[in-house]
Amino acid sequence: MQIALLGGTGDIGEGLALRLAYDTNHDVIVGSRDAEKAETKAEEYETELSSRGLDVPVGAAANPAAAADAKVVVCSVPAYHLADTIESVADRLADDAILVSPAVGMKRDEDGVHYNQPGAGSVTQLAAAAAPDGVAVVGAFHNLAAGKLANLDADLDWNVPVVGDDADAKTVVMDVTAGITGLEPLDAGGLANAAEIESVTPLLINLAANNDRLHDLGVRFD
Amino acid sequence: MQIALLGGTGDIGEGLALRLAYDTNHDVIVGSRDAEKAETKAEEYETELSSRGLDVPVGAAANPAAAADAKVVVCSVPAYHLADTIESVADRLADDAILVSPAVGMKRDEDGVHYNQPGAGSVTQLAAAAAPDGVAVVGAFHNLAAGKLANLDADLDWNVPVVGDDADAKTVVMDVTAGITGLEPLDAGGLANAAEIESVTPLLINLAANNDRLHDLGVRFD
Repeated sequence: MQIALLGGTGDIGEGLALRLAYDTNHDVIVGSRDAEKAETKAEEYETELSSRGLDVPVGAAANPAAAADAKVVVCSVPAYHLADTIESVADRLADDAILVSPAVGMKRDEDGVHYNQPGAGSVTQLAAAAAPDGVAVVGAFHNLAAGKLANLDADLDWNVPVVGDDADAKTVVMDVTAGITGLEPLDAGGLANAAEIESVTPLLINLAANNDRLHDLGVRFD
Repeated sequence: MQIALLGGTGDIGEGLALRLAYDTNHDVIVGSRDAEKAETKAEEYETELSSRGLDVPVGAAANPAAAADAKVVVCSVPAYHLADTIESVADRLADDAILVSPAVGMKRDEDGVHYNQPGAGSVTQLAAAAAPDGVAVVGAFHNLAAGKLANLDADLDWNVPVVGDDADAKTVVMDVTAGITGLEPLDAGGLANAAEIESVTPLLINLAANNDRLHDLGVRFD
């Protein structure tokens, strides 16, 4: 399956690109607003994978070209770029494309980091509002620590709550998630349940900030 | 240490009473609006503990009498009873009493259960607003599955994020928490960080509702 990672040059996109290329047989294409930057990072990822004995191509393109023909399009961009990014690729998306939103809105004050809930209810629902009619939107990958995800030496043991109103699309994204070693997807229901998932991310940051021994946190539900 | 469990006759209070009596040397007193109900439940708890070879007294009283002289007063009542309950015990609290708030406000719609954020920011902050001046308020025990907590045959393996603006009071509550086998307290910062903890509870319910194999969920941060 072809998987595009819009904003795949940084943060959570880098980790997803490396893990998907390393752990699965999906074709990964890195998107960026700047095609040259996408190309540079994709070459870095190929070098990293090659150093571990895996010679696979990692595609690269400007976001709209990366999104074209991909079955799964992960919008791994900051929340404030999400709507723009979706609009920029809207007319290139395949009819059966699935948009995946991992973004979380946060604000910081003297106490710590807080969930910055948008009027739509959640950032995932903002993505759904920005998506073209008929394109399924699924929320996933909100609670992953980017640095640990991108370090292929690190063993993961995290749950990934997944939300979506299209059951088939949600199943596709859960299957993609399960392909990454150490990630276990969990069905969290419809898009309206996204806010509680997104809220976990600032909690993870606050816990790491207040406990010396904790860093790069993810979550498990047991 | 004397620990009062206001509303200790049901839900999370029952589990905390049983676990504290079973796992620690603290003196546990069950409070209720109805002293007779408190007495009945305390006897049930004593019988349950006795069946496991532990003959310890579990105290019982109406909430105000239960709160008097307790060092830690856990307000294990529903969110909509929280302010009333605190007001009912306010003039009986010891000067160095610590109020602990485990309550979460939730609302249900066709999609699932959602966090019902109060104007104060969180239910824990509502408790702080209702508390008498000088009484420290700590948020803890928000994300525990009541049924599993109250089943002493069940092994727990959960984290307990704890918030508070009074560092000493927070340490006391974290130490009490660590006394319960299978609970590991984590410092989540100040009271202003409570909403993200409370939001985990509806997420746990949504995950259990959407995954057949999951029930009685708590959370771990790794």
